[in-house]
Amino acid sequence: MKEKLTVIKVGGKIVEETETLNRLLCDFSALPGYKVLVHGGGRSATRIASQLGIESKMVNGRRITDAETLKVVTMVYGGLVNKSIVAGLQAKGINAIGLTGADMDIIRSVKRPVKDIDYGFVGDVERVDAEALASLVRRNVVPVLAPLTHDGKGNILNTNADTIAGETAKALAAIFDVTLVYCFEKKGVLSDENNDDSVIPVLTPDLFREYVTKGIIKEGMIPKLENSFSAIDAGVTEVIITSASAIREKAGTVIKK
Amino acid sequence: MKEKLTVIKVGGKIVEETETLNRLLCDFSALPGYKVLVHGGGRSATRIASQLGIESKMVNGRRITDAETLKVVTMVYGGLVNKSIVAGLQAKGINAIGLTGADMDIIRSVKRPVKDIDYGFVGDVERVDAEALASLVRRNVVPVLAPLTHDGKGNILNTNADTIAGETAKALAAIFDVTLVYCFEKKGVLSDENNDDSVIPVLTPDLFREYVTKGIIKEGMIPKLENSFSAIDAGVTEVIITSASAIREKAGTVIKK
Repeated sequence: MKEKLTVIKVGGKIVEETETLNRLLCDFSALPGYKVLVHGGGRSATRIASQLGIESKMVNGRRITDAETLKVVTMVYGGLVNKSIVAGLQAKGINAIGLTGADMDIIRSVKRPVKDIDYGFVGDVERVDAEALASLVRRNVVPVLAPLTHDGKGNILNTNADTIAGETAKALAAIFDVTLVYCFEKKGVLSDENNDDSVIPVLTPDLFREYVTKGIIKEGMIPKLENSFSAIDAGVTEVIITSASAIREKAGTVIKK
Repeated sequence: MKEKLTVIKVGGKIVEETETLNRLLCDFSALPGYKVLVHGGGRSATRIASQLGIESKMVNGRRITDAETLKVVTMVYGGLVNKSIVAGLQAKGINAIGLTGADMDIIRSVKRPVKDIDYGFVGDVERVDAEALASLVRRNVVPVLAPLTHDGKGNILNTNADTIAGETAKALAAIFDVTLVYCFEKKGVLSDENNDDSVIPVLTPDLFREYVTKGIIKEGMIPKLENSFSAIDAGVTEVIITSASAIREKAGTVIKK
């Protein structure tokens, strides 16, 4: 039987504010078993880019990453946000290690081809080295992954944190019994966006299509759920969508085959 | 007999310019045996701090690290500079991993007590976890150390790169046959500061004292050499002071007992 491992993805909003970050560090530290944390940091990147006089351009919620913006996200995601989390986890007795995809060649990506939109220095994940991650995890080292990958040619590439979490969970599923947890602001996927308690407890592909058709699930939630089903199809045992404050209970919406 | 390991420290000037960085990456990649790279990044930190409207205050060549400056150095050293080097080494087939002292709890430090000067969030190294570094090195992973440590209480601390190189070399000397190489702008320690070819080939403690008394060795070179002798006393096999472009030949000034 495979050993259990949890991949938790938290958005920028949670890791960028002291209070929510501290709460997350406590909850994450208390989680039993092997674990991997994947974080965002978009708000800090936007703020620091702005302070440096660099305009943040977004298309469909995705950042256009020109050369100057790449420097900012490398600094903010790989340095400021990542190392704050790592130092914070160390203080809780968790032997964390901060990694971008370039470190130990963990995540190799390819620069997104230009079609309708030129996203710039954005990477689409090609492969995750699950064995390298497993070698750390088995020594009770906890990887903390920044949303940055590399192309193997010397270039860092900006990469969506949800995608990193999904691809990492899929790769690790070959070795571990993986639960993937996506944290966001709500307690789960809601059936009524005006009612925070209307959490849909379970989503199957059939239910998902039904909710999309009815317009109950929409916008940013659709790619998140598509990622989730793709992870399940690739061997991830379960995907949970919930709020960061509920990761210990694993409440929220459970995505099943 | 212990296996050989080389710790190379390069200053900010070398890693912050594309041309000298590329040359360094080539030379460092070609070095045989186990190796660790330690880098600075002060010039980039000063530049980005300035762009963010933060004044860089230096005392005796050391940066005063207030809370805002700490964020900048965490971004620049831990993110921008470190990850550029790591991605660059990966492109040369070197399986690099970028680390601050917080990552894997590699280097624990204590915030420098305030005496005459309050250096702010600056760490004095307490201990280096040589076993954790060795576990990476033995898997042919090459640690790339940023000049940042942590206090175990959740705080990142700014730490002099020369000190990190020295303390890391000392700790690794318990396990490996360690050569420590300090790279700077000159080919070695000069007996005539106006003649770049006047490299002193060998320095012993007696010769060092003689040169200091005569005023031939002065200023910033004195703490660098004191660090070097302290490393030798602590079991490092040899210390070499040279230019980054000479690391393959190991030319320069050799520090001996």
